[in-house]
Amino acid sequence: MTNSPINTPSSPSFASTHLIYEGKAKKIFEIPGEPHHVLMEFKDSLTAFNAQKKGSFESKGVINRDIAALIFKELAAQGVPSHFIENIGERGMKAQKVEIIPLEVVVRNILAGSTAKKMGREEGEKLARPLVEFYYKKDELNDPFVSDDQIIIFQIAEAQTLVDLKRLALEINTVLIQLFQSIGIELVDFKVEFGRTQAGELLLADEITPDCCRLWDLKTGEKMDKDRFRRDLGGVDQYYQEVLKRLLKRGGLA
Amino acid sequence: MTNSPINTPSSPSFASTHLIYEGKAKKIFEIPGEPHHVLMEFKDSLTAFNAQKKGSFESKGVINRDIAALIFKELAAQGVPSHFIENIGERGMKAQKVEIIPLEVVVRNILAGSTAKKMGREEGEKLARPLVEFYYKKDELNDPFVSDDQIIIFQIAEAQTLVDLKRLALEINTVLIQLFQSIGIELVDFKVEFGRTQAGELLLADEITPDCCRLWDLKTGEKMDKDRFRRDLGGVDQYYQEVLKRLLKRGGLA
Repeated sequence: MTNSPINTPSSPSFASTHLIYEGKAKKIFEIPGEPHHVLMEFKDSLTAFNAQKKGSFESKGVINRDIAALIFKELAAQGVPSHFIENIGERGMKAQKVEIIPLEVVVRNILAGSTAKKMGREEGEKLARPLVEFYYKKDELNDPFVSDDQIIIFQIAEAQTLVDLKRLALEINTVLIQLFQSIGIELVDFKVEFGRTQAGELLLADEITPDCCRLWDLKTGEKMDKDRFRRDLGGVDQYYQEVLKRLLKRGGLA
Repeated sequence: MTNSPINTPSSPSFASTHLIYEGKAKKIFEIPGEPHHVLMEFKDSLTAFNAQKKGSFESKGVINRDIAALIFKELAAQGVPSHFIENIGERGMKAQKVEIIPLEVVVRNILAGSTAKKMGREEGEKLARPLVEFYYKKDELNDPFVSDDQIIIFQIAEAQTLVDLKRLALEINTVLIQLFQSIGIELVDFKVEFGRTQAGELLLADEITPDCCRLWDLKTGEKMDKDRFRRDLGGVDQYYQEVLKRLLKRGGLA
């Protein structure tokens, strides 16, 4: 596994950035003199099943940074706000500093993964309408699935925040379905996270990449996402690269 | 384990009743000539952890039938409809025939059991307001916890039914809290099921007994419910008997 230092600081100020947080796929640094911004560094590591399975491939962080940036830009063009500000170097992204709401918000268009298993239904079933699910972000509890009432009563988020999260998640879904369809990919599901700026604005944060989407090739049905890693299907790096290639080829984005 | 035949038929017609369904704690029989009614027989068996743990005690069915009947009567007096019609014999209950909605509806006043564990919180925490949870009744899936959106999208129940179920569950909770408080018992949580009559009326069905409630003695904090069996605390039969004794002593019920 490569774990190279951030490959960006053309400005000497970044040399003195401080690590705020290291997650499974990203490191977050302070930016001196910019208290409302952070620098996210996309790592090459890949994890699954709450980090019980670990791997990596070279340039994964670079590819994912580029995919995430292209998607944030498309969302902005369609009126969906995110924390994205600009790319920095090869695997860096400057973003608004937010306090993350401890909910993983999952949107499903086609049934797959844990919910298919839980409900005893076939993977690949098209849902009558998009399903929004919430998982409480807490590694030591294995990110349990929670209902709206549990979220409110256990004070994970307020009722109005939940309404806003659902609306934003469905708006993002609408944009992403069209974006991926235009490059021959079916959006099966995705996971996003949100945060609040100090001013109280609710923003899409974290990332949208093949790490947290299920993407199926529209023609062949091949998986083009982290399920290749989860399920040992091979070619993880080629498929991530292919998603980026198609996004770049589409143009009008960068 | 005793599994005695139904101990009731003073009327010879019951001799020819047919078994419709046998659950973990009850058998359901047809009643000849009464197509809209069923006869429920309360068994002596006790199960926990989706029937992975099994036990029984003599007269458990008799005690639970009496407790369930007293509670159904109190609920009726307070305006909450149930399927209960009348007691028959020692362990029989005549009830309206309903189609069960495949949801276990759980109401929690104090945190305990699976939700305390899932959320990593202390058992015994008083909730800010009652929490209603839904579990999809499907033994082979281990009755998974489901959100409102999952229930609607997977067509387990309609949106309006969910609203009605929540309202009824909270009404039942209000009545039960007062009922148990009046006999020195704290109602921690309970599980109920609902069904629809052929005419479409939504009714509380199944049972409310120490099998599906958590009941703590208000003075001593002692558990007076199936947790004594689940957690091998002993004295299961005495505590079930004590709950019945207090309900009978309260009077104004039978």
